[in-house]
Amino acid sequence: MKSFRKEIIMNIPTRRDYVNITPQVRECLRESGIREGLCLVNPMHITASVFINDDEDGLHFDYDQWLEKIAPHEPVSGYRHNRTGEDNADAHMKRQVMGREVVVAVTNGKLDFGTWEQIFYGEFDGGRQKRVLVKIIGE
Amino acid sequence: MKSFRKEIIMNIPTRRDYVNITPQVRECLRESGIREGLCLVNPMHITASVFINDDEDGLHFDYDQWLEKIAPHEPVSGYRHNRTGEDNADAHMKRQVMGREVVVAVTNGKLDFGTWEQIFYGEFDGGRQKRVLVKIIGE
Amino acid sequence: MKSFRKEIIMNIPTRRDYVNITPQVRECLRESGIREGLCLVNPMHITASVFINDDEDGLHFDYDQWLEKIAPHEPVSGYRHNRTGEDNADAHMKRQVMGREVVVAVTNGKLDFGTWEQIFYGEFDGGRQKRVLVKIIGE
Repeated sequence: MKSFRKEIIMNIPTRRDYVNITPQVRECLRESGIREGLCLVNPMHITASVFINDDEDGLHFDYDQWLEKIAPHEPVSGYRHNRTGEDNADAHMKRQVMGREVVVAVTNGKLDFGTWEQIFYGEFDGGRQKRVLVKIIGE
Repeated sequence: MKSFRKEIIMNIPTRRDYVNITPQVRECLRESGIREGLCLVNPMHITASVFINDDEDGLHFDYDQWLEKIAPHEPVSGYRHNRTGEDNADAHMKRQVMGREVVVAVTNGKLDFGTWEQIFYGEFDGGRQKRVLVKIIGE
Repeated sequence: MKSFRKEIIMNIPTRRDYVNITPQVRECLRESGIREGLCLVNPMHITASVFINDDEDGLHFDYDQWLEKIAPHEPVSGYRHNRTGEDNADAHMKRQVMGREVVVAVTNGKLDFGTWEQIFYGEFDGGRQKRVLVKIIGE
């Protein structure tokens, strides 16, 4: 069994954003030389998400509006977590709705994806550098 | 390390439905001959979900009502994604709430499940053929 | 390839609670002797969740309030599932929002975590003994 590990560095200047990281994950897979296995991708942070969906700007706008409705940022004082001095409790909720991680099949040296599947980093508390972990195991 | 890959074909005539695919996944595991490992199951589409829960019709009715409340189909014009000519933005939301994929432990050649765990395909934009990927790695 | 399996027993006296199980998962990893691979952690039950987030009491309070708003326990008669004699339909919803399972990278014999990542068991229908499965594969 082979294993491969790499971190992708994210710098999102705004509070929230959705970035397609499929090219970086593909590059990791190529570097790994693994042909058959599983590829795990997750943020190493708890106010961000890695998810698979469509690379369509309108949809990302919709996600953002929808997540803000389900778990609004304001009022900041409405969350007990924010008494710690943070203002990001909503980001911890948004990340749970979108999920932490994805596990992708690796077949014939490629991400085994349907036509529209793309991997996104979802940032819900930006303005600082963050890391995304790519771990691939297989042969 | 062994690996196994197979697609399950889904044809859901209605917009939304919840189908127990545990028998098909069990059959994949039997075919694979893998005794210890991990089994990934995911739709190869972005408006569907694979999730694990209870095989109880009332619960599926409840999920459907609840998801429609959290991310309503109408008004179709309320989503920017639908300006692309689609009417399925809500399906992209519903899929995130239910999750994309499941990873199941394989032990002694069986899906390592508790009493009530069953694998479901959740369709949120049916009326076309779709594929579910089963990837198993192990020994 | 090596594989390791162990169950963690949970006894939550209240209906809902959030318990840090990172020490138990670390102990499993140590026992397994696996240095590079993937670690799956999931409840073997369908009204509980395993998720990764912050070990901060205020946040857990916020999660609980927020989940109760998204999928309220009352009125019990508002869910068709509860006609089976159960009163836990809301727990099946809450578990989907928080997710079933986590998959964690294993690197150099450790859980490959960012600073704040911790593994939690989320109970949404307590008062009975439950099991959490830890399955680790790798080398």
